[in-house]
Amino acid sequence: MSNPAIDDVQLDRLADVAVRVGLNLQEGQDLILTAPAEALPLVRRVTAAAYRAGAGLVTPLLSDPEVTLARYREAGDHSFDRAPDWLYGGMAEAFGNGAARMAIVGDDPMLTADEDPERVSRAGKANSIAYKPALSHISNFKINWSILAWPGRAWAMRMFPDLDPDAAQTKLAEAIFAASRVSDENAVANWQAHNARLAERTAWLNDQRFDALQYSGPGLDLTVGLADGHEWMGGASRAQNGVVCNPNIPTEEVFTTPHAARTEGRVRATKPLSHQGTLIDGIEATFREGRIVEVSATKGQAVLEKLLDTDDGARRLGEVALVPHGSPISQSGLLFYNTLFDENAACHIAQGQCYSKCFLDGDSMSEEDVAKAGGNSSMIHVDWMIGGPETDIDGVRADGSKVPVFRKGEWA
Amino acid sequence: MSNPAIDDVQLDRLADVAVRVGLNLQEGQDLILTAPAEALPLVRRVTAAAYRAGAGLVTPLLSDPEVTLARYREAGDHSFDRAPDWLYGGMAEAFGNGAARMAIVGDDPMLTADEDPERVSRAGKANSIAYKPALSHISNFKINWSILAWPGRAWAMRMFPDLDPDAAQTKLAEAIFAASRVSDENAVANWQAHNARLAERTAWLNDQRFDALQYSGPGLDLTVGLADGHEWMGGASRAQNGVVCNPNIPTEEVFTTPHAARTEGRVRATKPLSHQGTLIDGIEATFREGRIVEVSATKGQAVLEKLLDTDDGARRLGEVALVPHGSPISQSGLLFYNTLFDENAACHIAQGQCYSKCFLDGDSMSEEDVAKAGGNSSMIHVDWMIGGPETDIDGVRADGSKVPVFRKGEWA
Ligand SMILES: [Zn+2]
Ligand SMILES: [Zn+2]
Ligand SMILES: [Zn+2]
Ligand SMILES: [Zn+2]
Repeated sequence: MSNPAIDDVQLDRLADVAVRVGLNLQEGQDLILTAPAEALPLVRRVTAAAYRAGAGLVTPLLSDPEVTLARYREAGDHSFDRAPDWLYGGMAEAFGNGAARMAIVGDDPMLTADEDPERVSRAGKANSIAYKPALSHISNFKINWSILAWPGRAWAMRMFPDLDPDAAQTKLAEAIFAASRVSDENAVANWQAHNARLAERTAWLNDQRFDALQYSGPGLDLTVGLADGHEWMGGASRAQNGVVCNPNIPTEEVFTTPHAARTEGRVRATKPLSHQGTLIDGIEATFREGRIVEVSATKGQAVLEKLLDTDDGARRLGEVALVPHGSPISQSGLLFYNTLFDENAACHIAQGQCYSKCFLDGDSMSEEDVAKAGGNSSMIHVDWMIGGPETDIDGVRADGSKVPVFRKGEWA
Repeated sequence: MSNPAIDDVQLDRLADVAVRVGLNLQEGQDLILTAPAEALPLVRRVTAAAYRAGAGLVTPLLSDPEVTLARYREAGDHSFDRAPDWLYGGMAEAFGNGAARMAIVGDDPMLTADEDPERVSRAGKANSIAYKPALSHISNFKINWSILAWPGRAWAMRMFPDLDPDAAQTKLAEAIFAASRVSDENAVANWQAHNARLAERTAWLNDQRFDALQYSGPGLDLTVGLADGHEWMGGASRAQNGVVCNPNIPTEEVFTTPHAARTEGRVRATKPLSHQGTLIDGIEATFREGRIVEVSATKGQAVLEKLLDTDDGARRLGEVALVPHGSPISQSGLLFYNTLFDENAACHIAQGQCYSKCFLDGDSMSEEDVAKAGGNSSMIHVDWMIGGPETDIDGVRADGSKVPVFRKGEWA
């Protein structure tokens, strides 16, 4: 029954990688899996692979873009500050009891672009508030979780407007399979080798104990201070429940938590940013004492400014990540309009919430400890790309000494 | 995007009837809607109609038969005594806060016929136990709820094995639209008239205060005692939250609660019974003091006996229902292998759990009160058809006087 445009063999491998490498699902562990209903061919394969891996109970929660749009177009005003608390509360309970969490993404990135922006942001805010208890199990890395992609038809047509839908979906599928390293039959081995390389990078960076990173390149003169006791992470990492998993399929980044008050200088985006259906392009920002004090964009400036005013933390950084220019997604030259892929195509920084797991003793730190160490907090976490083939980066130690980290977009 | 085999105009009407007549959804009321993902064309229309009717939040929970089968085929033994408590607990909470409940049915009735029956029954039992708190809001009629059907492709192929799938699905769709009274454009008015006729029947029966019903016909010599203080219901009825709704789309029956200990005589099924993927045919049973003491079937006897041994209440009656032979589903001559339709094609009785709402002051009766009045309780509620064109039924009053109720399968 699956879509002829999508190769079943690579879809089988993607499901296998998702369960064994992405989640590393444990014997008897339950799985909660969200996905668009359109992604059922992948949902079915993930479900079967999860049960083969010994899952207790797999519960898919399927969404549909037309149902989402029906609300924005037909519902009364009172609907837009509501969220399914009963469902999210249940999910929080299940995560608390040890269930693993998988998300399959694949909707049209511009799905709500033409809807009433005020309704979209109110609904989004109500959703984030209701989902917070469940999300904390993920942002605090208490459980093994993983995100992967389904080549959604509307998404493919958005990326390849000149191709017919079937051809567009095939092209997106192949790009997803390649980026997810399932193009050949030893996918799991590919991932073991990939994780090993990323582990070497993070080990080196953690040994260096850099105090800051100094970026230079076209329109780029930026110093990003790192949080006190920060820890670099990349590829497979251990959740608090002891399970080593890959939260992102694909992933090319090594990342850590910057110090919210210690970023200085000017930076220019090297890729457009797709945010809740709006394309923001040509971003240029100036940071002082960790905050964006000046910002402009050739496209989507109003949406960007509204985003930066979400709360106090929105103008400060919550993540700094290194991705070599030669990595697969970057080399594909494709803009996916989807953070899971676009952030893994270039060095990036993120406005907003930091990852508390990116501290040497992150597991035992309270929210206050994280803040004291420089970890930023915010309702948002929005990654934007600042690296490219001309980017040079130096690590700066506490004593002021410098060590080359990137030269011309590649590891030094 | 909807299936060419299914008429969009009648699908629009079905969604409208489902929300306005089935649920009678109230302004600001939330809706939880379960359906097979295949039924998305109807789910989308119901969601839009619900929001137009003022719904607060509509949350569809979509299922998929392949996901169900993957569990039976791939999961370890430990999986089969599990159920998603976190999800059903959330649903119970939402119903407790006043959400309405809709179910769209449409899966292959023989979906699990070839799976390990022991795994199927264990999973079913675990599910019923976990779902009980949520179900109590429905069986005690606390909230407005409604069930309707989507012409599922596998279901259609099961009913019309000689047609190609598209033709089979079109034929099932037309049968569902006709039975649901949406074949012409004044569907809501059709239902108002239909509900009025059913209300007349129930009023007459409730005025009669019959003590028992006496059935006669081919292989049929049965007396069914009625519960003390029973109330006949049919068509639209008022839930405890005050909302008048139609729990079944379609519906042709007027029904009440029999006395669990006062059924005597012999009865023969007039239609096959499809139960959890097994077809049980040629049922003949003998009742004494309310209990089936002898039973045989030309097909599926083992499954029938296992069903009757589920618990003490399984051999006793929980429902008695009157459906004239001339009603639409009966006249269609089709066997739907689905209770929602087959029970509305003929007079029927149900083994197992009674409806506590079918008592004059059902709203205020405890489970003990219901039992004392003769209301049966059981984990199962399985309807089987006993009426036909030759069926005569007399109402027997406490003083022994008799009143004709049915002659030759029609209202007397
Ligand atoms: Zn990142
Ligand atoms: Zn990020
Ligand atoms: Zn019935
Ligand atoms: Zn029934």
